[in-house]
Amino acid sequence: MVAEPKKIIIDTDPGIDDAMAIFLALRSPELEVIGLTTIFGNVYTTLATRNALHLLEVAGRTDIPVAEGSHVTITKGTKLRIADFVHGADGLGNQNFPSPKGKAIEESAASFLVQQAKINPGKVTVVALGPLTNIALAMQLDPEFSKNIGQIVLLGGAFAVNGNVNPATEANIFGDPDAADVVFTSGADVVAVGINVTHQVVMTDSDLERLASSNGKFAQYLDKILGVYFSYHYEAYNIKGVYLHDPTTILAAANPSLFTYTEGAVRVQTNGITRGLTILYNKQKRFEEVTEWSNKPSVKVAVTVDAATVLNLVMDRLIDS
Amino acid sequence: MVAEPKKIIIDTDPGIDDAMAIFLALRSPELEVIGLTTIFGNVYTTLATRNALHLLEVAGRTDIPVAEGSHVTITKGTKLRIADFVHGADGLGNQNFPSPKGKAIEESAASFLVQQAKINPGKVTVVALGPLTNIALAMQLDPEFSKNIGQIVLLGGAFAVNGNVNPATEANIFGDPDAADVVFTSGADVVAVGINVTHQVVMTDSDLERLASSNGKFAQYLDKILGVYFSYHYEAYNIKGVYLHDPTTILAAANPSLFTYTEGAVRVQTNGITRGLTILYNKQKRFEEVTEWSNKPSVKVAVTVDAATVLNLVMDRLIDS
Repeated sequence: MVAEPKKIIIDTDPGIDDAMAIFLALRSPELEVIGLTTIFGNVYTTLATRNALHLLEVAGRTDIPVAEGSHVTITKGTKLRIADFVHGADGLGNQNFPSPKGKAIEESAASFLVQQAKINPGKVTVVALGPLTNIALAMQLDPEFSKNIGQIVLLGGAFAVNGNVNPATEANIFGDPDAADVVFTSGADVVAVGINVTHQVVMTDSDLERLASSNGKFAQYLDKILGVYFSYHYEAYNIKGVYLHDPTTILAAANPSLFTYTEGAVRVQTNGITRGLTILYNKQKRFEEVTEWSNKPSVKVAVTVDAATVLNLVMDRLIDS
Repeated sequence: MVAEPKKIIIDTDPGIDDAMAIFLALRSPELEVIGLTTIFGNVYTTLATRNALHLLEVAGRTDIPVAEGSHVTITKGTKLRIADFVHGADGLGNQNFPSPKGKAIEESAASFLVQQAKINPGKVTVVALGPLTNIALAMQLDPEFSKNIGQIVLLGGAFAVNGNVNPATEANIFGDPDAADVVFTSGADVVAVGINVTHQVVMTDSDLERLASSNGKFAQYLDKILGVYFSYHYEAYNIKGVYLHDPTTILAAANPSLFTYTEGAVRVQTNGITRGLTILYNKQKRFEEVTEWSNKPSVKVAVTVDAATVLNLVMDRLIDS
């Protein structure tokens, strides 16, 4: 008896580990990818859309719709931070891939999210791999979205550890802190996978050799684009390996039991030197004063991961032709 | 061969655990208390001065000068947060002790700190048990203070854990976040003991019984005032015990090897919902952008404590007549 696969929409800013994550999702029997929505982050939104279409063409899955997301944060006027120094100027390892033939659908990402959640209430999971702008916009567009959406599994936050943009802040939350605060306090079923967890899932250079020696379509493709990502990690972290942020988050949607979680209200600092910081209230103290965390809905935050199993699943599914 | 005791000035806002800390310092052979300076926090500054004088009279140590500190934060106009719900309206367990006979010296706390550091350059340790206003004012008063002062051992911050004012913030840093940021980035030799460490040092109700059954002067006094502090902890944390924040910090000055430390730049968020939050940069990543932590001097932050030994030392020294 096999459970029906979980319908997911991947909100993505491809991005080298986004490419891995999308391929992994397509190879995961627990998941059915019903759409991609795009967002700025690793690249600008226009390029994210182009890359999303390109990746689906590589995968032979042009049946999956791509909906373009917001070009700006929910509080307009914020300068975007684009991580081209991590993923290459094209977001995909500076490989100059040909332009995709397909086009994004007419619907915006936020509108697509709202419609899909309405069609299958409680049955659609959003896996958010970039800044949370589109998800917040969907919540603003439709007050029922938080109830209609099954779950939001997001890569974001640096819980009780240093960030990766600066010591306070993780990149996806930093990309749109106001949007992140909307999502965390929305009342939706939110699961946050932060870099405190994803930094435990490291693909090493010997794993890369395994990919390179495979004839698999995805393995061959990823081997080409991963060089830039490895170089960045060596420079920034002095490691011969890369963090599998986005693939790990896909597996949090596919196989939640590979992780353990804590629960509590999460708020986001939206200004000052720790702009984008995430603070989880663990409920161990009753505070004297009413706080900004009081009476806010709880979300789940991943605290441990079975990193070996996650890495093996990622490798096996991406190597398999 | 006994090392010469370390000259310390205790900057304090007594406060029940401040009273314990002052008595403990007076009973610690490693320390010579050369002055108390007062600050708002557990009580307003005027009452802190009164209580400091009172505690020295109880101890029979009216030879030690008390210098009154600032009545306001360094960025004037900030509403003070006074923790009378933790320590009682009088700061000392609602015991209606008689007024002290002595008076504070004419010199302000900041001026006293500057002068003492100048007289014994590199030889005076400030143990700061309240908001860091006086220390920051000393730094503003004398640009040489950061060099002249031997070390600043401070109780402050919630490093990688929830705060005690709200989920983001510890009370002493919250009391004057701007002052704290001045101190952390001053270049002085700073050791921060946060509640991530002091929450490990718990005096239980059976320890309190030991105090109560002692005939020691300090034990008898503390037994009277500790009730309010125990009640607060039971209400706020649901524990039958109290955190020994201030005494633990005294022992970090007296016996640093009871702790382990990490080092890095610490910055304080000074506005927004996480106002007063402390973030230590652990230097594990080279960031792409210049950050607010870049090129800032390192401080030491306590990460572990030999809690059993700290508790035993506190108890033995306070029970001993």
